[in-house]
Amino acid sequence: MDARVEEHAEVLVDWSARIEDGDDVVLSVGPDAHELAVAVAEKVGERGANLVTTYSSDEVSRAYKLAHDGDFDEAPAHELALVENADVYLSVGGGRNTSEGSDVPADVREAYGKSREQLREARMDIDWVSTVHPTRSLAQQANMSFEEYRDFAYDAVLRDWETLADQMANMKDVLDDGSEVRLVKEDTDLTMSIEGRTAVNSAASVAYDSHNLPSGEVFTAPEATEGEVLFDVPMTLRGERVQDVHLTFEDGEVVDYSAAQNESVVGEILETDAGARRLGELGIGMNRGIDQFTDSILFDEKMGDTVHLALGRAYGSNFPEGSEDEANDSAVHVDMITDMSEDSFMEVDGEVVQRNGTFRWEDGFSE
Amino acid sequence: MDARVEEHAEVLVDWSARIEDGDDVVLSVGPDAHELAVAVAEKVGERGANLVTTYSSDEVSRAYKLAHDGDFDEAPAHELALVENADVYLSVGGGRNTSEGSDVPADVREAYGKSREQLREARMDIDWVSTVHPTRSLAQQANMSFEEYRDFAYDAVLRDWETLADQMANMKDVLDDGSEVRLVKEDTDLTMSIEGRTAVNSAASVAYDSHNLPSGEVFTAPEATEGEVLFDVPMTLRGERVQDVHLTFEDGEVVDYSAAQNESVVGEILETDAGARRLGELGIGMNRGIDQFTDSILFDEKMGDTVHLALGRAYGSNFPEGSEDEANDSAVHVDMITDMSEDSFMEVDGEVVQRNGTFRWEDGFSE
Repeated sequence: MDARVEEHAEVLVDWSARIEDGDDVVLSVGPDAHELAVAVAEKVGERGANLVTTYSSDEVSRAYKLAHDGDFDEAPAHELALVENADVYLSVGGGRNTSEGSDVPADVREAYGKSREQLREARMDIDWVSTVHPTRSLAQQANMSFEEYRDFAYDAVLRDWETLADQMANMKDVLDDGSEVRLVKEDTDLTMSIEGRTAVNSAASVAYDSHNLPSGEVFTAPEATEGEVLFDVPMTLRGERVQDVHLTFEDGEVVDYSAAQNESVVGEILETDAGARRLGELGIGMNRGIDQFTDSILFDEKMGDTVHLALGRAYGSNFPEGSEDEANDSAVHVDMITDMSEDSFMEVDGEVVQRNGTFRWEDGFSE
Repeated sequence: MDARVEEHAEVLVDWSARIEDGDDVVLSVGPDAHELAVAVAEKVGERGANLVTTYSSDEVSRAYKLAHDGDFDEAPAHELALVENADVYLSVGGGRNTSEGSDVPADVREAYGKSREQLREARMDIDWVSTVHPTRSLAQQANMSFEEYRDFAYDAVLRDWETLADQMANMKDVLDDGSEVRLVKEDTDLTMSIEGRTAVNSAASVAYDSHNLPSGEVFTAPEATEGEVLFDVPMTLRGERVQDVHLTFEDGEVVDYSAAQNESVVGEILETDAGARRLGELGIGMNRGIDQFTDSILFDEKMGDTVHLALGRAYGSNFPEGSEDEANDSAVHVDMITDMSEDSFMEVDGEVVQRNGTFRWEDGFSE
């Protein structure tokens, strides 16, 4: 076994999920993530925790949904009981075809998703962490060879997380103390209020209220957005390739939009509900182990030198206890990414915090 | 997809498990049983039932057990809750190496098994069915090519179960009405009392209190066994190849034993506890779709022209409600098979019921 598989398992079990003796652990395994599942099982056993392994196959799920009449039962009792009685939920993704669900009609997918809302909430109530095992199918999606993709994925996952968490704490401090963020680059001059919000130092550990491995971003919940922004990092939204989305905001709401490819997908997202036209997240990528885009939001949005904004639902973790502000609510949360590596800067309360990808506390920063 | 995979799924879901709208179903999937799992998911979706898929990998399980300190928690709450809240438990086996657990020390395996007793009981309390997807690893164990093995497995599984159940009802009637069974062949003359017992017509359906697919046997719980018996069908017991086990019974207990190969394994089994020296089951194989031995008890013991006896634990289903007899109790239940196709007969209360493999109600039977 590649030693990095073992290291990945160790980061997941110890740093991310903090699994302890006696914990009841659910491990959800993708069909091609077997190798990582074996390594995780070993670590879970070493810690003296209890393991239930579930099988997360898009082919199984597609067959089930297509055959069903579409009137799905809400939160089946056996699945809900499994999650509600667990302490930890680990998702180790990795299938054989990232397009496997493509011929499941959108209304069936939505009905299925809606029937599982209570299950999702139950999962969020326990210590959950999502990661992926590098598979051939993910390499293909990234337009990379399998070997190259594995190197890429492990560079992103096998960080010195403690040190990265310390660096990210600088960014969290700036955002927690600040009231207004401004992003400036080509076709972009956007201001957002972050007054009264708490930034999350997303250091890939439940101890940091961070649930992705890899992570490496600091995020908060903006409002009162004004101006324009260009998302120049290509992405796949609802199965379609979308390029150069440009949004114009007034009074916190999108009032104009365009895209160089599949513009209609952006329109559909904005039409979902009122919350879909407002921002739910401002995230600052700080994982320098991620050095290229791979058409996977798990990795792309964490990349150093990028900033992402999400239309739709905000995270409760950005609202301090006792806050009277309401988190933006929506059925969607759609992340879009802009490259901040060149000819760009980010200001907080008029002071430049990042210029051309370099943060104020890093070598080579120039005001 | 091989059409037989779909048929296998349909038999499992409809004939065996009788899955209905709204049922909460757990589907346990082996790493190489993916194809059958997809077909089963489709049928479960068609019926409008709810699906949780678990992953049953011997590699995952081995890694977990070897890493654990061996002091396993009893029936973890999350796993118990999953099973207790389910209506149906389907196990679709099929791994990549039937010897994967071979280097897990026996005491660890036993401790793990013991910690899961309550889970096993909870599973037995709901509608459970075990089957296997024909895999390359099972073909290898059977000493067959993959194609040949698949033909073999589907011949066994895809029976006209309704007709077979009717045929087996004849055997059940004979056993229910009878008091004493006698088996006679080379090195074999054994009598057993079956007075006051109810035979189970094991027709591969929960509706018949039968939980294996394939099945095709009628079984009861004997006692007061006297005489000798030769098990001339080779088998693997505790990972060891065992040949020609010969047992001598007095007053219902084994008083002498021998084997042509790995005799010590038989000795170990007999030493487990007092119940391990008595019979827990007399089973009569009636599945004529199974025409050769494949070193898998799921198939071998159902083969037409064979009879099997199990040392150890008896099934409660053989004891009619209100019976004051106690089922033989033991930590083990070890099936051993004898070939009844030639120079042999079985009598019930002095009347020949089967001679040289042919039953009384079949063409070609001679008293």
